[in-house]
Amino acid sequence: MNKTIGVLTSGGDCPGLNAVLRGVVCTAAKLDWKVIGFRDGYEGLLADDGHMELTLQNTEGIMQRGGTILGTTNRGHFVRKGGSGGRGRLDPVVIARTKETLARLRISALVTIGGDGSLSTSQQLFEAGINVIGVPKTIDNDLEATESSFGFDSAVACVTDALDRLHTTARAHKRVIIIEVMGRHAGWIALHGGLAGGADAILLPEIPFSYDRLADAVRAREKSGHPSTIIVVAEGARLAGGREHYHAAQSGEYRLGGIGETVAHELDRRINRPRLTKEIRTCVLGHLQRGGDPTTLDRILGTSFGVKAVDLIAEGKFGQMVSYQHSQVLNVPIASAVRRQKIVQTDCQMVATCRAIGISFGD
Amino acid sequence: MNKTIGVLTSGGDCPGLNAVLRGVVCTAAKLDWKVIGFRDGYEGLLADDGHMELTLQNTEGIMQRGGTILGTTNRGHFVRKGGSGGRGRLDPVVIARTKETLARLRISALVTIGGDGSLSTSQQLFEAGINVIGVPKTIDNDLEATESSFGFDSAVACVTDALDRLHTTARAHKRVIIIEVMGRHAGWIALHGGLAGGADAILLPEIPFSYDRLADAVRAREKSGHPSTIIVVAEGARLAGGREHYHAAQSGEYRLGGIGETVAHELDRRINRPRLTKEIRTCVLGHLQRGGDPTTLDRILGTSFGVKAVDLIAEGKFGQMVSYQHSQVLNVPIASAVRRQKIVQTDCQMVATCRAIGISFGD
Amino acid sequence: MNKTIGVLTSGGDCPGLNAVLRGVVCTAAKLDWKVIGFRDGYEGLLADDGHMELTLQNTEGIMQRGGTILGTTNRGHFVRKGGSGGRGRLDPVVIARTKETLARLRISALVTIGGDGSLSTSQQLFEAGINVIGVPKTIDNDLEATESSFGFDSAVACVTDALDRLHTTARAHKRVIIIEVMGRHAGWIALHGGLAGGADAILLPEIPFSYDRLADAVRAREKSGHPSTIIVVAEGARLAGGREHYHAAQSGEYRLGGIGETVAHELDRRINRPRLTKEIRTCVLGHLQRGGDPTTLDRILGTSFGVKAVDLIAEGKFGQMVSYQHSQVLNVPIASAVRRQKIVQTDCQMVATCRAIGISFGD
Amino acid sequence: MNKTIGVLTSGGDCPGLNAVLRGVVCTAAKLDWKVIGFRDGYEGLLADDGHMELTLQNTEGIMQRGGTILGTTNRGHFVRKGGSGGRGRLDPVVIARTKETLARLRISALVTIGGDGSLSTSQQLFEAGINVIGVPKTIDNDLEATESSFGFDSAVACVTDALDRLHTTARAHKRVIIIEVMGRHAGWIALHGGLAGGADAILLPEIPFSYDRLADAVRAREKSGHPSTIIVVAEGARLAGGREHYHAAQSGEYRLGGIGETVAHELDRRINRPRLTKEIRTCVLGHLQRGGDPTTLDRILGTSFGVKAVDLIAEGKFGQMVSYQHSQVLNVPIASAVRRQKIVQTDCQMVATCRAIGISFGD
Repeated sequence: MNKTIGVLTSGGDCPGLNAVLRGVVCTAAKLDWKVIGFRDGYEGLLADDGHMELTLQNTEGIMQRGGTILGTTNRGHFVRKGGSGGRGRLDPVVIARTKETLARLRISALVTIGGDGSLSTSQQLFEAGINVIGVPKTIDNDLEATESSFGFDSAVACVTDALDRLHTTARAHKRVIIIEVMGRHAGWIALHGGLAGGADAILLPEIPFSYDRLADAVRAREKSGHPSTIIVVAEGARLAGGREHYHAAQSGEYRLGGIGETVAHELDRRINRPRLTKEIRTCVLGHLQRGGDPTTLDRILGTSFGVKAVDLIAEGKFGQMVSYQHSQVLNVPIASAVRRQKIVQTDCQMVATCRAIGISFGD
Repeated sequence: MNKTIGVLTSGGDCPGLNAVLRGVVCTAAKLDWKVIGFRDGYEGLLADDGHMELTLQNTEGIMQRGGTILGTTNRGHFVRKGGSGGRGRLDPVVIARTKETLARLRISALVTIGGDGSLSTSQQLFEAGINVIGVPKTIDNDLEATESSFGFDSAVACVTDALDRLHTTARAHKRVIIIEVMGRHAGWIALHGGLAGGADAILLPEIPFSYDRLADAVRAREKSGHPSTIIVVAEGARLAGGREHYHAAQSGEYRLGGIGETVAHELDRRINRPRLTKEIRTCVLGHLQRGGDPTTLDRILGTSFGVKAVDLIAEGKFGQMVSYQHSQVLNVPIASAVRRQKIVQTDCQMVATCRAIGISFGD
Repeated sequence: MNKTIGVLTSGGDCPGLNAVLRGVVCTAAKLDWKVIGFRDGYEGLLADDGHMELTLQNTEGIMQRGGTILGTTNRGHFVRKGGSGGRGRLDPVVIARTKETLARLRISALVTIGGDGSLSTSQQLFEAGINVIGVPKTIDNDLEATESSFGFDSAVACVTDALDRLHTTARAHKRVIIIEVMGRHAGWIALHGGLAGGADAILLPEIPFSYDRLADAVRAREKSGHPSTIIVVAEGARLAGGREHYHAAQSGEYRLGGIGETVAHELDRRINRPRLTKEIRTCVLGHLQRGGDPTTLDRILGTSFGVKAVDLIAEGKFGQMVSYQHSQVLNVPIASAVRRQKIVQTDCQMVATCRAIGISFGD
Repeated sequence: MNKTIGVLTSGGDCPGLNAVLRGVVCTAAKLDWKVIGFRDGYEGLLADDGHMELTLQNTEGIMQRGGTILGTTNRGHFVRKGGSGGRGRLDPVVIARTKETLARLRISALVTIGGDGSLSTSQQLFEAGINVIGVPKTIDNDLEATESSFGFDSAVACVTDALDRLHTTARAHKRVIIIEVMGRHAGWIALHGGLAGGADAILLPEIPFSYDRLADAVRAREKSGHPSTIIVVAEGARLAGGREHYHAAQSGEYRLGGIGETVAHELDRRINRPRLTKEIRTCVLGHLQRGGDPTTLDRILGTSFGVKAVDLIAEGKFGQMVSYQHSQVLNVPIASAVRRQKIVQTDCQMVATCRAIGISFGD
């Protein structure tokens, strides 16, 4: 059976996207299917030159690289009101043109790789009669519908590597170093990266903190003979008492005077009055966390997701999304998957492990 | 309550051992317990100068490093007949001296970190009345009693990194490159490393292969426009028809003329007769796989195991072993845990994923 | 002959300091000399508990690690008026106490590892009768007195690695990414890192730039089919026409709203009016550049410098500084070495190479 | 002026080849020249489909990758009698066909990137009237005609990284680990990698060693409290008294029972009789040293060489070879450059540095 399928990557990029693409292409090749890739997320569905054929040749060696050879975007005609998480409906004209494109290219099914917002779009396309298969992408690991997703392990590895670097200079100068990492609503990257990188304190959106307790933690370390302190702060970390810190429009962006700077400032006020006792420095990882080659885990996850997406097409299970559960790649309805966020439970084992070894959450 | 506990690392080293040690020490420190580390595996229990106190100070920064600051060994008085996997009984004199040492140092519980053979020893010590807690260590990931164990992800990362290096040179010269990796009885490292590293063929102990099919795979790649081929072979890979290749005494050792060389030779006979058409090269990773800094995953697993071991002591649950199951660190009886190996199921999803994207198992 | 020598590390830390320390200790050990290390730069000379013996045992494995096991500081009693580059004289009391400490510990010669300011201090101590040997440290590579110095290659490697990460995400989103790196007065890190990392534009203190030309470069890339642009900017980059951007007190610090942000803002004004055509993101590497394990080159340079320092003591050549010239480690008088900066010549071969392959300097 | 030039990569691959290619292409693009790349070394000059156009587009991002996108070979019609170092003359038919190809493609000059043997070929082509520019390639760093060459720093970094890995496992088990690295005639990789990686002994072709002295070094370490020993051995290391060890046809190949194994065996005989006192393990790095992404230095060197090659064409300086001397990229006649090898001088500063810190050369 000769079939043509489409594929696209949508939303913020993360390591593993190319692994999914290669997984789709290699699996399709064994079935003698043709694969059309759309450029720049859903936008490629509307542009005249918005697509390219993906082959074994032009996807060779891409699994090992970050980014996405198809390009991606957070903007455009498919973003509904309310931003990438918007609940608005797609413009009917956009849906009609999408169908036209797919018909013209004889594409019988479309694999969409994207986050929460992109999957909502996929669901609408499915409801409009398009044979869609979703592949979840969340570098923050905050989708309830899948236990693991590619990109997360690579982002954590980037944080861990940064902490390894910062430890040596922090110790040499007996400094406090604050490192701001991704995580608007869920603190998984901060939690995993902080634990693996040997942080002394971790500030999460899920566990409200106070500056006084944080300052206590720094002083307690000093007293016990540890003159340097490394603090990992998720960009969405929240103060106890409801004060909000998060004000960025987009995860992973470098922002002027983000929460890292604020924490540095507040800590400075509490520790270095009346006189300087401890130098404080800040580091914002920003886009470094999105880049780089994927880790082994993310290559395996991405590839497995791509293979499963093609399997689902072969089985005709449209409107479904690939999902990792209990060490297996399964499928769940897209509809039931979107809008349910997975956050760090404050009483979970990993938080308890952190506390057991003396990591402070500033609470 | 002031308590003293002991800890030791036994068997082949792997990344993450130091993370366990630091996890034990930090958790004990919060409880005001003293930790005594024994040197060179169980042997430290017999030597006069076989121990050292482990403190927050001398374990600072060790989580991030491979190896074990306590030293370890595969040999000595605690290795029973039949090698590390031997089923013999410990010498009663050895047990008596062990008890003496623990009594002299007022050690009320002992954490043993080791593989299958070491855990059998732990079980015997427990049966002899010693308060033992086991922590599983298997770089090969082949213990049934725990879904994951530290060291494995780091070993796989080493294989993946090696494959990334070999791809560029293989392509430049259009060569076949064979890379021999750890895995005597279970092919997990070859399977994960091969998939993540973009191998074209993977040979495992669990899936018997034939040289003719392997040669077919190389020729098929050539025909489809891929002039280079990367083959990952586990040291315990087996030929269909029962012929055995494995003949090393110790996993991870570099062996003269191991299976990698044999595969190269047999492939050469099949491909390069009557004339050379394809250069073949071999690479044996050996001990490189055991060394290096642990990955984020192995640091987290190792730390969590160390914390759990102290928790189990606090709860008095002796004769138990730490175990990772369904995303949780739990405990299981040591007795039920040893001797049950976890091997690659030939019909598992990961093998199917490999086949789907065109990886050959030589079968 | 039984001798005791002292050693200290001063100023900002950089990879390779521990290699120097180990080089000193190993060489001294072969001569049966004792080595005393002073903590926290020169400050250790004044504190009661400011020193520790350095031995083969406690320096084992340190060459491979960043930071300095002795600690260091940019502040304290030895910093003259005008900051680290101050030309003031040391307080005579401080000199007297230093001599006392050295006499009490029977230290016959002192190796000081530091930058420009620290070497000025060394020269004053030498003039006051102390047997000083200087070892130059400049992560920025901006000391005229030595062709190469340890730490620089590691800092450049950090920048290159960051660029590798940013390329994938920049391409995926067709963005402009600006990365701010160290280099207040000399642009060596930006130049080497930018060339090695495949930057499209590099802004240096030595080559004044204009925002209009920089915007032209971004547009020219777009037109020629390269929708993403990576710009490396040294923290001391200067605008043509004399406007200054640099305003940080300390190299390597993360600063709120540094030049990276300013460039992003000015570029945004020129490119994204009247409507957004290109997203712009900024990344500040900051202290990441100082941390991490030293590269092979920095380990070799650091070790060679440490060995040479002990050689100079053995030869009684005090007041001299180790220096790398024409592939050899030599010595030059400290007096002639300080205060002469090595900056990028605008007509040098490396700048010409950058221009030849199309890198813009915004001029 | 519209011009077409050719370029090819010949001999064993090494990191930095793609940087040269990109340097050539980018520089040519600014001059509006067309670049034709020949595949598989000189062989591409004879094959009908042996070439491809190189453009800014298809060379984007290649600088950062090892290998060569053109392919290369050590075999074929251009290899003279006596192997890659053979002094024989090229077949006149081969020269005639080469000229034909160049004429047909209107190629006015040819850049050849290769080692000693390839440069000899280039010289013959130049003498036959072809406008050749040579670019030296030697991963072993053993060409007298250039102080530095790309690929070497990357190979050393690979060795250093391997030593970092082996140290942790060697210490954990108190073992002797022998690591065999490239270097048939010159020991630069072993010397630099051994020093940077913290080796305890280094065996070079240039400094004949004895097994008894090597065994002494291992015993001396044991006695001084260092139970593990790391020995780096160049594949061409030689025994004192003229006995030869080297017997491989090709640098970088993995060979059955190479010198690493021999050293292990001989050391075992001297140390472990009458009973085992120290486990010995061997590791052969082989092709891992050729692969991987180039270091910053190799990217800069490679790019600079490519730029210079085009400059030389623009100046009409044919028969010349690019060369790095005294921190500058210059040119020298190819004729004077070939056949002169650069080896380690036994009394050079780096060897003295190694001895000063206690590294044994087994002599």
